[in-house]
Amino acid sequence: MKIKIPQNTLSKNISIVQKGISSKTTLPILNGILVEAYDNKLKLTGTDLELGIETQLDCEVIEEGKTVISSKIFGDIIRKLPNYDINLEVDTSHNIHITCGHSEFNILGHPAEEYPELPKINEESSFEIPKDLLKNMIKQTVFATAQDETRPILTGALLEVKDNSAALVALDGYRLALKNSSIPYDNNIKVVIPGKTLSEVSRILDDEENNVKIMFTSSHILFNLGDTIINSRLLEGQFLNYKDIIRNEYKSKVIVKTSDIKESIERASLLAREGRNNLVKFDIKDDKMIITSNSEIGNVHEDVDIELEGDDIVIAFNSKYVLDGLKAIDSDEVIMNFISNVNPCIIKPKDDENYTYLVLPVRLAEVN
Amino acid sequence: MKIKIPQNTLSKNISIVQKGISSKTTLPILNGILVEAYDNKLKLTGTDLELGIETQLDCEVIEEGKTVISSKIFGDIIRKLPNYDINLEVDTSHNIHITCGHSEFNILGHPAEEYPELPKINEESSFEIPKDLLKNMIKQTVFATAQDETRPILTGALLEVKDNSAALVALDGYRLALKNSSIPYDNNIKVVIPGKTLSEVSRILDDEENNVKIMFTSSHILFNLGDTIINSRLLEGQFLNYKDIIRNEYKSKVIVKTSDIKESIERASLLAREGRNNLVKFDIKDDKMIITSNSEIGNVHEDVDIELEGDDIVIAFNSKYVLDGLKAIDSDEVIMNFISNVNPCIIKPKDDENYTYLVLPVRLAEVN
Repeated sequence: MKIKIPQNTLSKNISIVQKGISSKTTLPILNGILVEAYDNKLKLTGTDLELGIETQLDCEVIEEGKTVISSKIFGDIIRKLPNYDINLEVDTSHNIHITCGHSEFNILGHPAEEYPELPKINEESSFEIPKDLLKNMIKQTVFATAQDETRPILTGALLEVKDNSAALVALDGYRLALKNSSIPYDNNIKVVIPGKTLSEVSRILDDEENNVKIMFTSSHILFNLGDTIINSRLLEGQFLNYKDIIRNEYKSKVIVKTSDIKESIERASLLAREGRNNLVKFDIKDDKMIITSNSEIGNVHEDVDIELEGDDIVIAFNSKYVLDGLKAIDSDEVIMNFISNVNPCIIKPKDDENYTYLVLPVRLAEVN
Repeated sequence: MKIKIPQNTLSKNISIVQKGISSKTTLPILNGILVEAYDNKLKLTGTDLELGIETQLDCEVIEEGKTVISSKIFGDIIRKLPNYDINLEVDTSHNIHITCGHSEFNILGHPAEEYPELPKINEESSFEIPKDLLKNMIKQTVFATAQDETRPILTGALLEVKDNSAALVALDGYRLALKNSSIPYDNNIKVVIPGKTLSEVSRILDDEENNVKIMFTSSHILFNLGDTIINSRLLEGQFLNYKDIIRNEYKSKVIVKTSDIKESIERASLLAREGRNNLVKFDIKDDKMIITSNSEIGNVHEDVDIELEGDDIVIAFNSKYVLDGLKAIDSDEVIMNFISNVNPCIIKPKDDENYTYLVLPVRLAEVN
């Protein structure tokens, strides 16, 4: 194998496939990047067997072939080289010879035959979605996936498509984030995508306006971004019926400036985090929400202007879970709906029906 | 005590005195900031007993008094408040009441009487030096102080003043950094300042053009920056006679572009760091310096254009120590002087006689 390729192109693509490589792999070959040069294309692959990332780029291929190169040292070397053409040559003993400007590196590669095959995705169903929409759907939900593995299905997000509409839902037993979008596709799809896959897809998606093609099999999902393809195992099992959890009725409806309530909770949580549960209490009455928190080192009292429709209410939350939802909302104002101090609070952007964030309250000893 | 002060002013000054507070203190009161309000001035003090930082600022003092407030929670609260006036009130039971905009905090303070007194510096000798010059002197030397405590005196830098000239020198047994400057002061001063003190002084110095006044006693140094005063213990003991180490003769003199050699060593060290000692070898001959490094994972060969005056030489270094010196030099070209492969290399900026960096070679088995 022998190729010639500009340094900045190669460096950029190595960074992309490195997102598919886990430092915790037990299979040493997976610490490497599979490098394949055929038909004047260079293909790079990184995988941890759950998630796989492939990029393909134009390249002057002088001699076709393939090899596996340690991801860390390969990335470090290429990034540090000057932005000239890089010549990369691999001999039959897997010695890799890299030259660029006044620099010359020799490192040992591994036979490409030892590298596992990525799953072949035979397109069973697929749809297209704009990159920025997908990125936003992921950003507004993925943080609510469960971080612990006690219920593995909750470490993923449910993607449900039907009747020209897509919903992405994540929940962890304390809060739920749901984003709806209309897409031009009317078949039924219902899959659970690992949270890690969604995070990596979101990091790789650039802000270009073109579409991502998403393909499915019964066990895998594949995101085709054009030059980059990300494939991932799906999670197996039954996701919770999230629609039963979200109730639209309410007894108290609060409209409040997003920045006001976010900053007040952030300040209140400075003391809350010193106690247990990050507990903050909301006392909602007339046109005020009083947010308080107590801990051994002191107490805080925040006074937020609101519009209230319905009953007064006193309710407490883990401040982290409320803040996570507020941070996912770009709108200037949010609506918060309450039923009672033991029912979940539902937070929505005032001008956007497509996003719903639900958070469970913490029972207050004094109000039980 | 009762004061009124703009949020941004208070926040900025808390950040400054926090640099004097150690998280590892064994005396709990030193986790606090001493807050004193007298004569329409607010004075903040943070110390770990080795290093003390005081700032003084104009402030509306409604009732004079003093208290000690936990540094971390105080800083966190003030930084998160909106940029309005902050009212801070302390009652006789050390309850601290902070209000700002719609926010109200109550935290418990500590009696100011428990706070240790900072050493009184009776000016025995002093001189003034421009802030940017002092900052640069520190930046070019402090990294070469010893990090381990086996020879405590070497964890500091020697400041030697005489005949209108100041020298700051740091060395750790592997390399030495020396910066000379002319200052209008002709008395003799010879003190060893802790490296940590110098680092904090450099972080606090802004880029304004005015002077710093430096005062000395036999045991302490004090940097007067105007509104901020930093005092520190001096290190006791005999510093090495650095002038004996720096020899001006050479057998090989190399002139090279700073960026060329720096980038080449950085690339070579990608492989060197995998081996022992970060070993890189320089092979200097005619108009080329060949930099090589070997480790289990491969080898690298860098080819740097140089001007050589004198003998060819083959010599090896710990790449980290050479890079540290090159990074401290702003000039486009450096001069490197060699005597033999067991004598130190001396690196100087081509256009600046006032900076000297000396680094010891590593003996190569093959050239012994």
